[in-house]
Amino acid sequence: MAYCVDKSSVFGFSLETGISKDRESSKRYLSNLRGMVANEAVLEEMIKKENSLVYEFYEMGVPEHPGDLAFGTTICYPGKVADEYFMTKGHFHAILDVAEVYLCIKGRGLILMENPEGDCLYEVLTPGKMAYVPKRYAHRSVNIGKEPFVQFFAFRADAGHDYGTIETRGFRKLVVERNGEFAIIDNPKWGKN
Amino acid sequence: MAYCVDKSSVFGFSLETGISKDRESSKRYLSNLRGMVANEAVLEEMIKKENSLVYEFYEMGVPEHPGDLAFGTTICYPGKVADEYFMTKGHFHAILDVAEVYLCIKGRGLILMENPEGDCLYEVLTPGKMAYVPKRYAHRSVNIGKEPFVQFFAFRADAGHDYGTIETRGFRKLVVERNGEFAIIDNPKWGKN
Repeated sequence: MAYCVDKSSVFGFSLETGISKDRESSKRYLSNLRGMVANEAVLEEMIKKENSLVYEFYEMGVPEHPGDLAFGTTICYPGKVADEYFMTKGHFHAILDVAEVYLCIKGRGLILMENPEGDCLYEVLTPGKMAYVPKRYAHRSVNIGKEPFVQFFAFRADAGHDYGTIETRGFRKLVVERNGEFAIIDNPKWGKN
Repeated sequence: MAYCVDKSSVFGFSLETGISKDRESSKRYLSNLRGMVANEAVLEEMIKKENSLVYEFYEMGVPEHPGDLAFGTTICYPGKVADEYFMTKGHFHAILDVAEVYLCIKGRGLILMENPEGDCLYEVLTPGKMAYVPKRYAHRSVNIGKEPFVQFFAFRADAGHDYGTIETRGFRKLVVERNGEFAIIDNPKWGKN
């Protein structure tokens, strides 16, 4: 062949499970949701029984340059803490004014979003659907289905993460089960931590 | 429900075919490859018979802001012009210093890349594999398989496209079939248009 460098197989994952054999995922367990769920008593009971995996994600290590893109996959497992669906912690970007795109590969979930002014959005995702998180919106993935909720994501590589704001004050809304379907309700503990 | 705006179903497509019912795709036919293939005589014969669809793509209309992301899907159909596989025209970004990410959903293809200095790269993609087009690299998708090659893509929304450079001078390399497998060879017409 003519001189052309093969860069294949940089990163891949199963479109069925979201799992990659190419690298280690970052894992978040029930214990990582302490302080983030509505019913802390039920959470503690669950942790005593088994500190289950709630979600895991793979992120490509790219330079934090405004011309680069961070990308990877996230898998949120099905389950609930009391009536509140399993979810990721969620975050703002450290550079607030950048967007993020998600593509659902498997399962059924939603992206819950809010901006600093308190506007709240959500998008329900099934395989093939894309969610666009607008600039300035914190976002969290929530599994409202019965199988793993697998997504591909991409955002500007210099955007960074601000987890602290959400860890401190929570999201304004909760996603809970009501009569077998999801409902979005006000978070009674919002801003009170 | 508490006040939270439903932004669902913004855009979705079939993970089997890449086709979306939500909007119209941009389509490129054999006639759009005039001046871009090695064997123009065979191309003209094929067009006379049937001006087949070579590829189509869906692109989200987002503001051309450095904090936004352009994203969508591209479907390159299987086929060859003589021994040269069906491919997209390919482009640099108008802002040269931005990357692009691709996720293969279906089929088998490759991304062919080159920078202005003449360095050439490629990545072979199968479902679940991701390709990262580094900053400053022109890129083209090539279907080296027997079914549609479907990819999801994302890049910084202000990056723009420069198709002209490739249209004028071509890629330095061609992707052709040799004994049932792909081979990358030097483009004898490179820079001579």
